[in-house]
Amino acid sequence: MITSASNSQIKEIRKLSQRKFRKESGLFYVEGLRTITSALEQHAAIEKVIFCIELLESEFGKALLARAQKKGIPNLEVSRSVFESFSLKEGPQGICAVVRQNIQDLLANSSLSGLWVALEGVQDPGNLGSILRTLDAVGGNGLILIGESTDAFHPTSVRASTGAIFSLQLFQADTAAFINWRKNQSIELIGAVCGEVSDYRSYNYAENTVLLMGSEQKGLPDSLQQVCSALITIPMIGSVDSLNLANATSVLLYEFYNQHNPVRKK
Amino acid sequence: MITSASNSQIKEIRKLSQRKFRKESGLFYVEGLRTITSALEQHAAIEKVIFCIELLESEFGKALLARAQKKGIPNLEVSRSVFESFSLKEGPQGICAVVRQNIQDLLANSSLSGLWVALEGVQDPGNLGSILRTLDAVGGNGLILIGESTDAFHPTSVRASTGAIFSLQLFQADTAAFINWRKNQSIELIGAVCGEVSDYRSYNYAENTVLLMGSEQKGLPDSLQQVCSALITIPMIGSVDSLNLANATSVLLYEFYNQHNPVRKK
Repeated sequence: MITSASNSQIKEIRKLSQRKFRKESGLFYVEGLRTITSALEQHAAIEKVIFCIELLESEFGKALLARAQKKGIPNLEVSRSVFESFSLKEGPQGICAVVRQNIQDLLANSSLSGLWVALEGVQDPGNLGSILRTLDAVGGNGLILIGESTDAFHPTSVRASTGAIFSLQLFQADTAAFINWRKNQSIELIGAVCGEVSDYRSYNYAENTVLLMGSEQKGLPDSLQQVCSALITIPMIGSVDSLNLANATSVLLYEFYNQHNPVRKK
Repeated sequence: MITSASNSQIKEIRKLSQRKFRKESGLFYVEGLRTITSALEQHAAIEKVIFCIELLESEFGKALLARAQKKGIPNLEVSRSVFESFSLKEGPQGICAVVRQNIQDLLANSSLSGLWVALEGVQDPGNLGSILRTLDAVGGNGLILIGESTDAFHPTSVRASTGAIFSLQLFQADTAAFINWRKNQSIELIGAVCGEVSDYRSYNYAENTVLLMGSEQKGLPDSLQQVCSALITIPMIGSVDSLNLANATSVLLYEFYNQHNPVRKK
């Protein structure tokens, strides 16, 4: 059992709270029984499980540790004070994991099918994570992060995704690379904007669709609008002039879902 | 010009970052050019505008101050260091306001019409604020906060609402009071749950509807489900077992909007 918070392995875990070290190591930190369960079930590349018996009170938590051990995932026992030195929760549940990031360069991928979301310059990790959550819920395939954006592996994004970060594919590309990539793709690219374009409900979404959203502050730049198959907008009749990015994306994703999974009115 | 951060008026402004003092004073703190513009346009009860000429660089900001002054709203000039002592922004724009809270006891209101959202025990002020934003966008009338919840006037909620906190009506009630109130109301109360109930798309929403959502962690308690006109659910086909509260509310609000504002398919 590690009892010193200055142990080198523990220092490496704490460093994962910084984007710089997440990038350098290609790893990220995961906490919460539900999220770790999801990592296991989705066969995420878990490098290490760290636990503290004193804090691991629930039967569910103990079973989760046993399951990880049975799978042969390396594990590390630490003291309470050590666990609390890196835990992000107010009431730590005594188990966390270090997981390898599952994001790839978009250019390495020749073609995509199914439903995708592409986010250009997304800034809020909570938005990013909850978009992953909705995208998983509607049966989507994955997310493309374009340009300078927040980190999908930020603890807030991971938590907000409630496990969807493990079930979905993740790609990244800079803006110019995305535009080039797009020119060789037959998948429909549907851009969401504020303006005089089609009402999002009047568009018939193809089965293979990338829904492209701009950033919270700036919306979708012209260079990206120009390579879209179509532009759509969500009507608004109140006093605000836009919606929260994750809320807007969720509304659009459920329109896609609804068109492909209709219900009959009772 | 106030140059001391320990001035009593300045201390009162800083205290508004604490829920306790927001409650005691019935006031809240508003920052950001867009949000203050909205407060003015929606005729919010602005008690005071505070500004710092050195920070108020934009023409838009200067015009906003002039507009507030022309309306006869009391204003207070402060030094840069004083403004920075209470500002919540990294790059303060040099203008903020203290506004009277526009929330009322639900029981004081005999009947509601139009579209409302009721949130039971909502915990995240960002969710609350972005729900106000979507509710405004679909032409909703207001929000009812039920039970122990976060504060609608928390700075994160105010910011996330992008002004909708001024355009919508706000009510509050404890859970028992809400249930009693509801028994004497003819408005439809539609509860959103996870489970084997109607698909949200198969329900025909009445013009006068309260959409009732449970908290992020616990969902809608039985006592509230029992007084609903109907229960609805959002289908999910992925691995996650629920949606973010604000995303789910937005999907439901746009279904209401869509039923009452249909578009013809092209």
